[in-house]
Amino acid sequence: MPYRPTERTEARRVAARGVIVDAATELVAHGGYREAQVAAVARRAGVATGTVYRHFPSKADLLVEVFRRAARREVDAVASATAGREDARDALAEAVRTFARRALRSRRLAWALLAEPVDPAVEAERLAFRRAYAAVFAATIRDGIARGQLPAQDAGLTATALVGAVGEALVDWVAPASPTTPARDAGALLQGLVTFCLRATTDQEHDADVHHHAA
Amino acid sequence: MPYRPTERTEARRVAARGVIVDAATELVAHGGYREAQVAAVARRAGVATGTVYRHFPSKADLLVEVFRRAARREVDAVASATAGREDARDALAEAVRTFARRALRSRRLAWALLAEPVDPAVEAERLAFRRAYAAVFAATIRDGIARGQLPAQDAGLTATALVGAVGEALVDWVAPASPTTPARDAGALLQGLVTFCLRATTDQEHDADVHHHAA
Repeated sequence: MPYRPTERTEARRVAARGVIVDAATELVAHGGYREAQVAAVARRAGVATGTVYRHFPSKADLLVEVFRRAARREVDAVASATAGREDARDALAEAVRTFARRALRSRRLAWALLAEPVDPAVEAERLAFRRAYAAVFAATIRDGIARGQLPAQDAGLTATALVGAVGEALVDWVAPASPTTPARDAGALLQGLVTFCLRATTDQEHDADVHHHAA
Repeated sequence: MPYRPTERTEARRVAARGVIVDAATELVAHGGYREAQVAAVARRAGVATGTVYRHFPSKADLLVEVFRRAARREVDAVASATAGREDARDALAEAVRTFARRALRSRRLAWALLAEPVDPAVEAERLAFRRAYAAVFAATIRDGIARGQLPAQDAGLTATALVGAVGEALVDWVAPASPTTPARDAGALLQGLVTFCLRATTDQEHDADVHHHAA
């Protein structure tokens, strides 16, 4: 389908932005925000520094876009992990595992998303990112309540608390300054987080009943 | 006891710093970091702008000190709330209530401590603040395990997750941009957080047993 000239121009603009954002994201994933200086981003993207500034008036504008795209990928991955699961507890466990596994696989990027000190404009995106995660957890909890798999609770509060809990535990693992003791066991972390989150969402009386009937 | 000249000078220096930090803290508690401009701090402290700079070479240095002192007060309050309690579950509940009540009482300051976008130098203090909170929770959990009141668990992981959970839930309440729906019930928030945290620290099998024996 042939583009009209303005469409063609717009498509080119979007593609050029994408190349710049990808280059900046790779730099952030390697060494954090300070590696994504405009000159370095331009070099990696194979464009002139002026081109970067034409698309992003300031470095903060560029980093906001880097953050948004990377954050959306993470939230989408967690949402996919919960999709189509019959049991809300399975869905929650898989959401937590996906959140944590992805962070442990790309620690430097996870640090940038979760906690790396950064320009206030990017900080503001971090709050939106955490709310998007919480919305995924809240939807799963609401499904579980509706299906009788989870006890009645304030799904929004539980979801927000879960995102805080998992995020905070991961920060300790992905912080570049963290002591990298070889004794740390990622499997135990995943299991510990899943256990924590399932306990926190499940009424103990309710659960005691389930165990009682099963026994 | 008479001071020697150097001691007197040092005491005066410490007192002058204190007045400046107090003035800056009041401004932050009122309107966040951006209200604590050096000129405004000097005016409120009743000193010359140059005096502020003599004690704090940059605004970031001043805000780091404001953050540290305010954070220490919060952590101390939570630690006091847990002190001398026989039951670890009571101690945890009281720690969570204290953390949350103090934040709800000074929302603007809590926002500044927990999440307000700010200079990276202050951000770094925030991580230390969250670790200090986690250390208080971890000590309580370890006590509870030693006394047989809580099941064996990775106390450090649970503590970190609890601080994340409570902090994240409070952010939603103290954020200045939050919709202030009058329907929000602080009592329900406190109760919800305590329930979440006690569930998350307690083994359900263990708890089921307790209920079983009690029945």
